[in-house]
Amino acid sequence: MQEIKVQLTDNKKEKPTDEQLPFGRYFTDHMFVMDYSQEKGWYDARIIPYQPIVLDPAAIVFHYGQTIFEGLKAYVTTNQDVLLFRPEENMKRMNRSNHRLCIPELDENLALEALKKLICIDRDWIPTQEGTSLYIRPFVFATEPYLGVAPSTTYQFVIILSPVGAYYKEGMNPVKIAVESEYVRAVKGGTGDAKTAGNYASALKAQEVAEKEGYSQVLWLDGKEHKYIEEVGSMNVFFKIDGEIITPAINGSILQGITRKSVIELLKYWEIPVIERKISMEEVYQAYKEGKLEEAFGTGTAAVISPIGELFWNDYKITIHNGATGELSKKLYDTLTGIQTGKEEDPLNWVMKVEG
Amino acid sequence: MQEIKVQLTDNKKEKPTDEQLPFGRYFTDHMFVMDYSQEKGWYDARIIPYQPIVLDPAAIVFHYGQTIFEGLKAYVTTNQDVLLFRPEENMKRMNRSNHRLCIPELDENLALEALKKLICIDRDWIPTQEGTSLYIRPFVFATEPYLGVAPSTTYQFVIILSPVGAYYKEGMNPVKIAVESEYVRAVKGGTGDAKTAGNYASALKAQEVAEKEGYSQVLWLDGKEHKYIEEVGSMNVFFKIDGEIITPAINGSILQGITRKSVIELLKYWEIPVIERKISMEEVYQAYKEGKLEEAFGTGTAAVISPIGELFWNDYKITIHNGATGELSKKLYDTLTGIQTGKEEDPLNWVMKVEG
Repeated sequence: MQEIKVQLTDNKKEKPTDEQLPFGRYFTDHMFVMDYSQEKGWYDARIIPYQPIVLDPAAIVFHYGQTIFEGLKAYVTTNQDVLLFRPEENMKRMNRSNHRLCIPELDENLALEALKKLICIDRDWIPTQEGTSLYIRPFVFATEPYLGVAPSTTYQFVIILSPVGAYYKEGMNPVKIAVESEYVRAVKGGTGDAKTAGNYASALKAQEVAEKEGYSQVLWLDGKEHKYIEEVGSMNVFFKIDGEIITPAINGSILQGITRKSVIELLKYWEIPVIERKISMEEVYQAYKEGKLEEAFGTGTAAVISPIGELFWNDYKITIHNGATGELSKKLYDTLTGIQTGKEEDPLNWVMKVEG
Repeated sequence: MQEIKVQLTDNKKEKPTDEQLPFGRYFTDHMFVMDYSQEKGWYDARIIPYQPIVLDPAAIVFHYGQTIFEGLKAYVTTNQDVLLFRPEENMKRMNRSNHRLCIPELDENLALEALKKLICIDRDWIPTQEGTSLYIRPFVFATEPYLGVAPSTTYQFVIILSPVGAYYKEGMNPVKIAVESEYVRAVKGGTGDAKTAGNYASALKAQEVAEKEGYSQVLWLDGKEHKYIEEVGSMNVFFKIDGEIITPAINGSILQGITRKSVIELLKYWEIPVIERKISMEEVYQAYKEGKLEEAFGTGTAAVISPIGELFWNDYKITIHNGATGELSKKLYDTLTGIQTGKEEDPLNWVMKVEG
């Protein structure tokens, strides 16, 4: 494994207080950078002061969006240990995304080492207040200055760190969601199962429209028939119907969320029935009418669990659990964040300690 | 209209000879840049020496691909006039793309003025040899350093110029095309009708697979049923079947090509039957079997007209016009490039002279 060079900053930034922290607006003192060329492969792994990226205006990323990213979090425990939650899953998914976008594979061990080393260097930036964490954003982008539509021959892999505030500042608050019937996030054969920029760019419009109508996110239906449920905002989604937990099966257009996977594994560990299958909006509506729609929630790295209080679909208002957080949603949130922050035992061996 | 400031370079680059010119690898001495903020709107329109773009690593373009672009060409006539081909169509489409990507609208007149002024300053870069041109790439990207998935509050609009070589160096050469049955370029409700990075990123994989199998491009089918023809590579597509010209109708996932539009208008002007409608691969195959598939070609700014010599679909090899360029493809190419370069009369009033 190649050596990671370190150049420390001479100008440490002032840190925000934990109370001031929003999501993704503050960045730490250092960043990790590594370059790729066809001749050298991935080379020059280095930690350097946080600084601007300098690119030719013709760099492929600006024109053809050849880029992927990951997102995960680090937490400080009450014993002052630093914990990561299933980071090897992020590294695996990063390479699956690379593959879909024709980006050369990264050494997952090196990427994980880089991430840990960077966290150690900027350790003082990890917030400690309840609900806060250090958000970690690894990303790769195409740097070759070329206007032809072709995979780049050069890339840069960067990791930046952002201390982030509590997602639920005033306790868990179920969200109102509009079911999107015009715009489509992704379709089988597209890039929906890769963590790549275009998926998010394409989602902005629907989100804008939903917000104007008073909804905080959209629920995405499949691109073929506009019937089957895929995701909610940029999260995976679960429904509790008549005692059973249902989440849309991975189908090529749904992102394989790591929180999604963990929720499924945790439910199985608890021996609560959980099934991955196609589920239509019609089915959810029928369950609601029959009084069997007990809970619904999104899962993702930022919110962990995001309970859904209301769905708006075809002029129907579907109220879930009287608009309040369901017991299972709360239990999943408490358990997952408990494991992530080292407050609860970790029966499935998910957390990784950052040493050094 | 705001003033465009000009700062000329002190270090003019060496120009490549016309014979050396590939596509999109050389860039001229200057570029146009304009910034956007919510407070100021679009501001600080300026022509400056060609130089790198400097961005915070958290800039939204790297993560969520909020970006759009355009592509058009300038030609020098034998009288030393500089001509643009329907540039106002590009400016209109640019704002349609902006709208889809939640990017603030640009002043189309200012953008066109900027483009002309930049061309005048770098006029010596326009190649003159047969088939060469100056490719113009306006693009907009999100610059705000923020990891939340939301439209940026700041943007940059840039125009760069690239002298490009003849697309057909050894005469028109029909291409072999693989019909893509796994990957999907776009689906209704997505961003297929906007010129945005994600569409091109998602297309790279299919292109890579096709090239490995000896095909130069892919033909995209619709994302819903994998039956109906959408585009070819990054071009629109036309078929001549039994004397009639057919091109897929605009449906929300097909890019509204300006060459496409011009071909339709030219055919109508010539009183040749042309129709925009759904067309399936099965229909093209049946026409081939009945000996009625007379020609097929792609249309786009780079190639203008790209004849298709062979389609590979479901293990069938469909040879078109014996693999040679059809008469109509040739006539359209000659007429369009003739109009673009001022060698032919311009009956539909398409070219715009760049003065000054």
